[in-house]
Amino acid sequence: MSSRVETVFSHCSSPVDAIMVKNGTAPILDENFFYLTDFVSGVFEGCLAVAFPDGRVEAIVSELEAGSARRGSVPVSVYRTRQEFKEILSGLLGSVFRVGINAAGLTVHDRDSLKQLLVKSEFVDVSAAFSSARLVKDAQELDRIRTACGIADRVVEALPDIIGEGMTENELAAEIDYCLLKEGAERPSFDTISSCGANTAEPHYGHGDVGLRSGELVLCDFGAQYRRYASDVTRTWVLGSSSSQQREMYEVVLRAQQAALDTVAAGVPSSVVDAAARKVIDGSAFKGRFIHSTGHSLGLAVHDGERLSTESSLVLQENMVFTVEPGVYLSGVGGVRIEDDVRVTSRGCEVLSKAVKAFAEVG
Amino acid sequence: MSSRVETVFSHCSSPVDAIMVKNGTAPILDENFFYLTDFVSGVFEGCLAVAFPDGRVEAIVSELEAGSARRGSVPVSVYRTRQEFKEILSGLLGSVFRVGINAAGLTVHDRDSLKQLLVKSEFVDVSAAFSSARLVKDAQELDRIRTACGIADRVVEALPDIIGEGMTENELAAEIDYCLLKEGAERPSFDTISSCGANTAEPHYGHGDVGLRSGELVLCDFGAQYRRYASDVTRTWVLGSSSSQQREMYEVVLRAQQAALDTVAAGVPSSVVDAAARKVIDGSAFKGRFIHSTGHSLGLAVHDGERLSTESSLVLQENMVFTVEPGVYLSGVGGVRIEDDVRVTSRGCEVLSKAVKAFAEVG
Repeated sequence: MSSRVETVFSHCSSPVDAIMVKNGTAPILDENFFYLTDFVSGVFEGCLAVAFPDGRVEAIVSELEAGSARRGSVPVSVYRTRQEFKEILSGLLGSVFRVGINAAGLTVHDRDSLKQLLVKSEFVDVSAAFSSARLVKDAQELDRIRTACGIADRVVEALPDIIGEGMTENELAAEIDYCLLKEGAERPSFDTISSCGANTAEPHYGHGDVGLRSGELVLCDFGAQYRRYASDVTRTWVLGSSSSQQREMYEVVLRAQQAALDTVAAGVPSSVVDAAARKVIDGSAFKGRFIHSTGHSLGLAVHDGERLSTESSLVLQENMVFTVEPGVYLSGVGGVRIEDDVRVTSRGCEVLSKAVKAFAEVG
Repeated sequence: MSSRVETVFSHCSSPVDAIMVKNGTAPILDENFFYLTDFVSGVFEGCLAVAFPDGRVEAIVSELEAGSARRGSVPVSVYRTRQEFKEILSGLLGSVFRVGINAAGLTVHDRDSLKQLLVKSEFVDVSAAFSSARLVKDAQELDRIRTACGIADRVVEALPDIIGEGMTENELAAEIDYCLLKEGAERPSFDTISSCGANTAEPHYGHGDVGLRSGELVLCDFGAQYRRYASDVTRTWVLGSSSSQQREMYEVVLRAQQAALDTVAAGVPSSVVDAAARKVIDGSAFKGRFIHSTGHSLGLAVHDGERLSTESSLVLQENMVFTVEPGVYLSGVGGVRIEDDVRVTSRGCEVLSKAVKAFAEVG
């Protein structure tokens, strides 16, 4: 983890003598804790990681997490009581002046508690340094994301044989999540979306006790988490016979995605990628019906910090990983979204999710 | 939600004119947002709920969550840009003096951003008021926890026929999660633990690519989330023929659990419940091998704020819900844990999870 740590320190806008990242109670866990420690299993509620400019990382963990922590490669101190936690923390940081914190992941409560323990320290927000460092993936991170994409691909390929009339959205979600785990995911990387009919017009709908019906759009948006890294893909099919409107929606979204993919390359502003997809949709019968940004960065988090959006000022760099996921949403009717994960390269992009995406009627 | 809101306000140690709860980016989502709004589906990253002393709640949500929010019963304002978010928030709280925040769920970054938007307001931490209010469940919350327990029960009953030699811990986790969803869970309430052999001695182990072997302990710790409320149960079996040590561990843990259950009642200090379980284990051959607290409160969060532990000063009240989960852990050998969920009643407790827990050899 040494080079990751040095990268984070190099991105700090003002120098700090150490950085600490503390988890709250689940679900308030900071991905930067795992970025620094690379602990693959375990929960780590209330645990803390400390990093130093020379690349060293140490972890302070509760007895419950000792086993998971010791399978990792950073030095671990185990506390059994709050008093022991305090003593270990004071030993590590009690005489450190400027301590970096992640203000975007640390709760106000934890910040105040830590301040009482480290009275001599000044806390400096280094959340931007974490975001910048994490945007560009190292080889290990890319390997994990590739594996997570491969798992999602195999689930996508299985779905046309699983989707059938009468099955409910809830049952479809159960099948997707089961396939993800059977194919090697540690868990779904986020709450699976499996919607049909008019529900596909809501990008964050989820799933319900609603039967899939012939002639309807079926949209599945899901991902695998592998060694804490996420994939995130979406495919949309029609159950049974499709209408010309459904085929047109699909064709426009597929073209929009290709247009976006064609623009991705190091040095390109992310807003340009968004504009390329939006131009295709706004030049079609579905003008204005692409109601979210074209993608988001992907890594330890599914929404990993940046977006491919009109408002973004980010310029793409090699080894950033983004979703590219335009969609068309007709309220009360249905929606189509096609989503893949890509790695930015010097001259273009590598599409990491490789499942077929030609229009298909299934069931 | 009116009575919940009034309860939260009544628990505020100093008066506030309004309370606001803001979500960060997943996984940093504040359960109190859902406690106030009762939104059942949706993600709600970056969204905000505002509550007033008269019981009113309003939600400010992004366009992506509009559909999910409008299925709820509180007034909803939808923003498309950060500027719109600011304007809606200013309209609601711009002239409010004392604004309660949940310092245990709000990030430092979000607190600072909100402070810039609400320059006239003083922020007051009301996290303790949320914790106190949420500890005592209302009828709707109890219904949901009961349903979540019933789902977990059905999975427990199915497991003896699923567990088999050669299956891996990962495959067992996939089966458990699949069963949970098929039985009606929205999702597992936390990362399922399915461990075998020496891995069962690590309370937070998870699961791995490790085959179950005859003669080994198999421990499954999982729960259902139903309408955002959690159940959390653990059962331990032996695959194939058990040893006398395994049976003795099981018998001691079962006795410890019963001793704890026998003490639960409104008015009893939670430390007394912990002591009852600990006394049984420390009076056995497994003295000192019960390395966590006896249980935790359960609700919107799996670890819902309080514990049944030696250090706790909490006194039980009617309609609090706790896990009761003593265990014995022999490092390098194996562990046994038996966990049920109970509602505190005026004179004892109602055990909400009802699956069998007699010692059993399976497979």
